[in-house]
Amino acid sequence: MHSPSELLKRIEQSINEIRYPTYPASLYEPISYIMSLGGKRIRPTMLLMVVDLFNGDIAAAIPAALAIETFHNFTLVHDDIMDNAPLRRGQQTVHERWGANTAILSGDVMMVEANKHLTRVDVDILKPALDAFNATAQGVCEGQQLDMEFETRNDVRIPEYIDMIRLKTAVLLGGAMKLGAIVSKASHEHADLIYQFGENLGIAFQLQDDILDVYGDPLKFGKQVGGDIISDKKTYLRLKLQELATDETLTVLTQMSTDRDQSVKVTRVTSLYDQYSIREQAEEMMKEYLDKAFKAIDKIDVDTVRKAELISIAHQLMNREY
Amino acid sequence: MHSPSELLKRIEQSINEIRYPTYPASLYEPISYIMSLGGKRIRPTMLLMVVDLFNGDIAAAIPAALAIETFHNFTLVHDDIMDNAPLRRGQQTVHERWGANTAILSGDVMMVEANKHLTRVDVDILKPALDAFNATAQGVCEGQQLDMEFETRNDVRIPEYIDMIRLKTAVLLGGAMKLGAIVSKASHEHADLIYQFGENLGIAFQLQDDILDVYGDPLKFGKQVGGDIISDKKTYLRLKLQELATDETLTVLTQMSTDRDQSVKVTRVTSLYDQYSIREQAEEMMKEYLDKAFKAIDKIDVDTVRKAELISIAHQLMNREY
Repeated sequence: MHSPSELLKRIEQSINEIRYPTYPASLYEPISYIMSLGGKRIRPTMLLMVVDLFNGDIAAAIPAALAIETFHNFTLVHDDIMDNAPLRRGQQTVHERWGANTAILSGDVMMVEANKHLTRVDVDILKPALDAFNATAQGVCEGQQLDMEFETRNDVRIPEYIDMIRLKTAVLLGGAMKLGAIVSKASHEHADLIYQFGENLGIAFQLQDDILDVYGDPLKFGKQVGGDIISDKKTYLRLKLQELATDETLTVLTQMSTDRDQSVKVTRVTSLYDQYSIREQAEEMMKEYLDKAFKAIDKIDVDTVRKAELISIAHQLMNREY
Repeated sequence: MHSPSELLKRIEQSINEIRYPTYPASLYEPISYIMSLGGKRIRPTMLLMVVDLFNGDIAAAIPAALAIETFHNFTLVHDDIMDNAPLRRGQQTVHERWGANTAILSGDVMMVEANKHLTRVDVDILKPALDAFNATAQGVCEGQQLDMEFETRNDVRIPEYIDMIRLKTAVLLGGAMKLGAIVSKASHEHADLIYQFGENLGIAFQLQDDILDVYGDPLKFGKQVGGDIISDKKTYLRLKLQELATDETLTVLTQMSTDRDQSVKVTRVTSLYDQYSIREQAEEMMKEYLDKAFKAIDKIDVDTVRKAELISIAHQLMNREY
């Protein structure tokens, strides 16, 4: 078995070894650019950890890991256009630097590149690998569409929200791990269980993100604490408050959305969260999904010691600083 | 063997039978919409004609035909965003009707849907089918990028232009036919020859389009005659004129681009084309590519009678009204 840092090194090396065509340069430069901006490479790393779990061949799994990472970066390029985001990982987004049209088209080619990577897996598991990959890709697009829709809807319910974050972020983590199982020729049952591990971990992670946005340590949380409150984002916390609050509180909350002083707004909304114990309920929900994740991996019939790294990285992901 | 109209019927029927998910509706409605706007379905029809050529199984080839048609429609959705086009086949474009963000995302899902269709081909030819499909998809994106780049470049040469139209339109026709050969389990050599037939036919077709834009019968040509001249599009005709014209003529041509009266501009540029025999040279070039196409299909080692329909449809495509 390999340590996560060894696997990460393999992934970085493989990404560096990718040679894109040089013509038309304006189509491929953005791809090299976004792929080299880094990020934690958490999805391909966990994919390879699953390969280790099932005693598979790491080298044979690299194409699947590259497919997942390339697809993930493709979604970033297109999502950043839709979200009109100027920065990604502290650098200019692709559409800011090269324009929206090139960003659309470079993204499209990245989807093709992802598929090309995947075709290099063993031909005897090519079909199930493609099926898992396509289902994942479709889910991610559905999640992004729901996320955009929710911005203009005022009747979003919590189960819909959970389903949105499941599709938008958790399906890709689950799908990456399922691909790891498939390329390792694990059983269907094992592939499904590791998918459940990844998907539920992904939902728990996103719920934690919602909590950290309000209660995180500004020095340790990567984003601006209170950012979701400032932008009136319909997070789990916000939706839970809307579900529980009296009409009076809801009126107050609506008025707050026009607060000119952002830090006052953050303080006031946070105090409403506190009043309704929203943090505790969000943590409860997060733990439910984390429990589901651990129950799924627990059912996988391999030596407990082989699961240790995956369980450990899951704990690390869920122990970000408050 | 089947007539082209029988094959077209099979394709229309198969498109009608596709059931997209219903949620999120806003993601899938645009897909049903664009797929049902029609068009000539020339690529999937010719794909199935190739299947007939090689005595393959039409039913087994339907997934490949749907993959090609879905991919083609995906490119229309994204190209229309980039070109800021309000209409497609006389109807609102997807981005006009649903907004650019939904058009980006529905397009992305169409690429996934195209890949999903393709995974349903016989598993023993899945890998070569994917390789042909991905190479095609990549080429089409490269062609669109070059087309956009050429708009702002003043030093485009004819070989680059030919390469652009090859990638943007001809590769997809060639790729469709190659897929038809692959799903029919034809030899590599036959697959390559039919690809050459399709690609060269596609280039000839596009050159014909450039000619018709200037010399077509306004009642029979689908688009506005003179449209390329009005928009200063760098077509084969324009580039050939720039290559041959004296400095004096080039100055006159540059001045014409600011002509306020569009019909005067069309008349004046056309008379320059006439002066330099541009039409004849464009027709010469078109015939060269058509010759290459027919030479390629000629080399295919099957009964001549089996080739008749494909040759006949190629002639039909190239006998649009002047």
